[in-house]
Amino acid sequence: ARPKVGYYYTGKNAFNMLVEEISRIKVRDVQSVPVVVPTNTSAYDVIVTMFLEDVGTVYVVEQGGILAGVVSRKDLLKIAMGSGDLHKVPVKVIMTPMTKIIVTTADESVLEAAKKIIDNEVDSLPVVRPLAADKTYEVVGRLTKTNITRLFVELGEGKRR
Amino acid sequence: ARPKVGYYYTGKNAFNMLVEEISRIKVRDVQSVPVVVPTNTSAYDVIVTMFLEDVGTVYVVEQGGILAGVVSRKDLLKIAMGSGDLHKVPVKVIMTPMTKIIVTTADESVLEAAKKIIDNEVDSLPVVRPLAADKTYEVVGRLTKTNITRLFVELGEGKRR
Repeated sequence: ARPKVGYYYTGKNAFNMLVEEISRIKVRDVQSVPVVVPTNTSAYDVIVTMFLEDVGTVYVVEQGGILAGVVSRKDLLKIAMGSGDLHKVPVKVIMTPMTKIIVTTADESVLEAAKKIIDNEVDSLPVVRPLAADKTYEVVGRLTKTNITRLFVELGEGKRR
Repeated sequence: ARPKVGYYYTGKNAFNMLVEEISRIKVRDVQSVPVVVPTNTSAYDVIVTMFLEDVGTVYVVEQGGILAGVVSRKDLLKIAMGSGDLHKVPVKVIMTPMTKIIVTTADESVLEAAKKIIDNEVDSLPVVRPLAADKTYEVVGRLTKTNITRLFVELGEGKRR
């Protein structure tokens, strides 16, 4: 029988509550705006874009915002160490192609997306909207470890309800 | 009066519990091993170290592991775009010097450290042990957004008690 007070024990402990609380936060609640460049951009111009926008990852898109690849600071640092002219290296050559890209969607839980980031050892995930059955995606956002760190701070400060 | 059941309401809700739970996790519980190079290392060799160790930040240390500076992929990408010989650029020239470095300690809460990462827009914090009153630090660890993302996943999966 329930005790006759305003509150009663529900069988949940702090950990269950923590898990529930975290699980209901969606990617759309914390994602950032994506920074994109066309497929014909040079490695040099991608680096310039990265510094201007202050991001660590840039998405390479075809006409209509269709995701074609991902370029990270790591990819660019590798190519910058070589002897080639960065103005002449097309981003297509150095980007991670679609076949190897892990994606998320705005509806996915941040927890599931964060697991993908950790399991696949990537810095961020493109937030995509599937356009067809053949794995064609429009890129609509960017989920980074910065977004998740900020969320952690907000949860810890009791600012997110 | 307390109801005569095994449990009673303590005035805490899920959010208070969440905040408490997160606040008691210390930097030492999640930190990584630091990757360090001596102050006389070339920019080229720092990049090689970064790839070999697969880290985004390297700490520059004087004799005895005294922290002298921090170098990020961003710093190195900037210098790699220039026309200079990376073998001849000393890391001392491109590192962020101690006067501008934000640090944490193993005893600090991850929440406080995560706030520093967000507020100062850095990728990671060196975990230090103060050696003297004049702001000399030994570097003992590395707290990154990856550590915090992994912690978030563990909290969300109920794996951390």
